[in-house]
Amino acid sequence: MVATNSQQYLEFDLKRYLAAQQAQVEAALARSIDVVYPEKIYEAMRYSLMAGGKRLRPILCLATCQLIGGTTAMAMSTACALEMIHTMSLIHDDLPAMDNDDFRRGKPTNHKVYGEDIAILAGDGLLAYAFEFIAAQTQDVPADRVLQVIAKLGRAVGAAGLVGGQVVDLECEGRSDVTVDTLTYIHRHKTGALLEAAVVCGAILAGANEGDRQRLSEYAQNIGLAFQIIDDVLDITATQEELGKTAGKDLQAQKATYPSFWGIEESKRQADQLVNEAKANLAAYGESAYPLMALADYITARKN
Amino acid sequence: MVATNSQQYLEFDLKRYLAAQQAQVEAALARSIDVVYPEKIYEAMRYSLMAGGKRLRPILCLATCQLIGGTTAMAMSTACALEMIHTMSLIHDDLPAMDNDDFRRGKPTNHKVYGEDIAILAGDGLLAYAFEFIAAQTQDVPADRVLQVIAKLGRAVGAAGLVGGQVVDLECEGRSDVTVDTLTYIHRHKTGALLEAAVVCGAILAGANEGDRQRLSEYAQNIGLAFQIIDDVLDITATQEELGKTAGKDLQAQKATYPSFWGIEESKRQADQLVNEAKANLAAYGESAYPLMALADYITARKN
Repeated sequence: MVATNSQQYLEFDLKRYLAAQQAQVEAALARSIDVVYPEKIYEAMRYSLMAGGKRLRPILCLATCQLIGGTTAMAMSTACALEMIHTMSLIHDDLPAMDNDDFRRGKPTNHKVYGEDIAILAGDGLLAYAFEFIAAQTQDVPADRVLQVIAKLGRAVGAAGLVGGQVVDLECEGRSDVTVDTLTYIHRHKTGALLEAAVVCGAILAGANEGDRQRLSEYAQNIGLAFQIIDDVLDITATQEELGKTAGKDLQAQKATYPSFWGIEESKRQADQLVNEAKANLAAYGESAYPLMALADYITARKN
Repeated sequence: MVATNSQQYLEFDLKRYLAAQQAQVEAALARSIDVVYPEKIYEAMRYSLMAGGKRLRPILCLATCQLIGGTTAMAMSTACALEMIHTMSLIHDDLPAMDNDDFRRGKPTNHKVYGEDIAILAGDGLLAYAFEFIAAQTQDVPADRVLQVIAKLGRAVGAAGLVGGQVVDLECEGRSDVTVDTLTYIHRHKTGALLEAAVVCGAILAGANEGDRQRLSEYAQNIGLAFQIIDDVLDITATQEELGKTAGKDLQAQKATYPSFWGIEESKRQADQLVNEAKANLAAYGESAYPLMALADYITARKN
C-alpha cells in the first residue's frame, strides 16, 4: 500500500470535489461556443458537448495543473479542449459507418438529431475549435508550453493515439483470435492516450519538469487501463439503468474484453492493482495529490 | 491597372516557379507521414495527401512568408499542415453522407478504397496531425507567432470557416431561392477561409505587421473569390478530361453558381476585376510580390 496519512486521505471529500470541478467545467464549456450563423452547426456542436458526462478529462487536467502549482485559469482552456476532442470522438464513433449507435448518455446521438452530414461536420468543427481554443484562449502560460500541449494533444487524438486505437478496434470486430495484447493496444490508444494527455498537459501548463511528467504519465496510463477494465466489467455486471447505455453490448457482439480473457474477479483484481500502482506514482506529492488519488479510487468503485 | 515594371513582371516564369515550389512541397509532404502500425490508417492518410493537386495553399503560404522576409524553412510545416487540412476536407466532403463522390483527382475517393469508417478516421487523423505538425515541427519562429498561426488555422477550418461554409452549402442543396449573397458566403467560407489563412499564416510566421497582414488578407480574399468564380465557369466550359472530375456537375444538380446569376461573360469579368484588385493589394511590395501577382493571374488563366 501507498504511504499516506490515511485518516486525512479518507476525509478528502471526492464527491464534493468532483461536483465543484464539474460545475466550473460545465460553466466554461457553456461559455466556449456561441450559437451564431449558420446556427445549425453550432447547435449540433453544443448538443453533444453539453450532453453531460463525467468531465473526467477536464477534471484530471485541472487537478494535475494544480498539483504542480498552476492555477485553474491556466488549464481551463485546455480542459475544455479535451472535452471538445472527446466529444468529437464520440460523435464520429456513433456514426452509422462506425459503431452505429442511436443513443449516447441517454439521449439520441448527434446524427440521429442533425443528420449524418452535420454530425461529421460537427465533429470536425469541435476538433478544429479545440486547437483554436487552446491557442487563442490560454492565459498566463508561456507560449512554448502551450505549443507543447497542442503537439501532445494532436498526437493523442491522431493516428498515433485515439484514431489508431479505433482503427485496430474496427479491424478486430467479429474476430475470435484477438489477443490480450491487441486488446490492451486498443485501450491504451482509444481511451488511454487522451486520458494520459489530459494529465500530462495539465502538468506541462504548470511548468512540470521531466520527472514530474514521467510520474504523472505513468499514473495516467495506470488509471486509463483500470478505467477500461472496469468498463468491460460493468458492461457485464451493471444494469442498463445504471450505465445510461445498452448493457451487455460487448457480450452480444462477442467482443474481446478483459473479463473474456481473465474472468470478472481477476479483471477486478488487475484493475485494483493498476489503481494501487497509480497511487504509488503519486507518493512523492503528499496531500496535494489527494484529488488525483481519490480519482484513481473512484475508477474502481464507480457504478457507471 | 497596377503600376509594375511590366516587362520584368511578364518575364517572371510562373511555370518554373510553381514547379520548383510544388517539388519542395511534395517532398516535405512525403516525409511528413511514415507508415507504421496500424498501417491501414497511415496508408489511407497518405493515399489522399499524396494524390496530387496544385498544392496552391502551401505555395501561397511559402510565397507570402518569403515576401515578408521569412524563409521557406520557417513556413514549410504550416504549408504541409494546410494541405493536410485541405485533404481532410476533401475526404469528408466526398463521403456518401455528404457529396457522395466516387472520384477525386482522377482516382477513387478515400472511402471507395478504404471504406467509410477508415475515411472518416483518416480525415480526423489528418486534421489532428496538422496541428501537431505545426506545433512540433516549426523551426526558427517565435512560439507566440506559431500560436497565432494555429489559432488562425483552427478558425479557418472550423464552424466559422470551412465547416460553416459546407453547412450552408448543404442547406442550399436543391433550393431554387439561393441568393448571390448566400453563394458568396458559402465560397468565402468553404474555400476562401483556408486560402486566406494560407496567405496570412505565411505572413505571421515571417513577423508581418498589422498593415501587411491586412493587405495580404484582402489579396487572399480577392483571389479566393476569383478562384471560385472561375471554378464555376470551368464546370460549364471545360471538358471532363481537362477538369479531372465530372464536368457539368453543377448544372446537372441545378446548383446556384456565379454563371447562373451573371452569365459566363460577366462572371469572367468579375473574376478579372477581383484579380486586378488582388494585384493592387500587392502594389507596395514591388518585384518581391511577382510570385503572388503571377499566382493571381494564373487563377483566371487556368484550364482546370
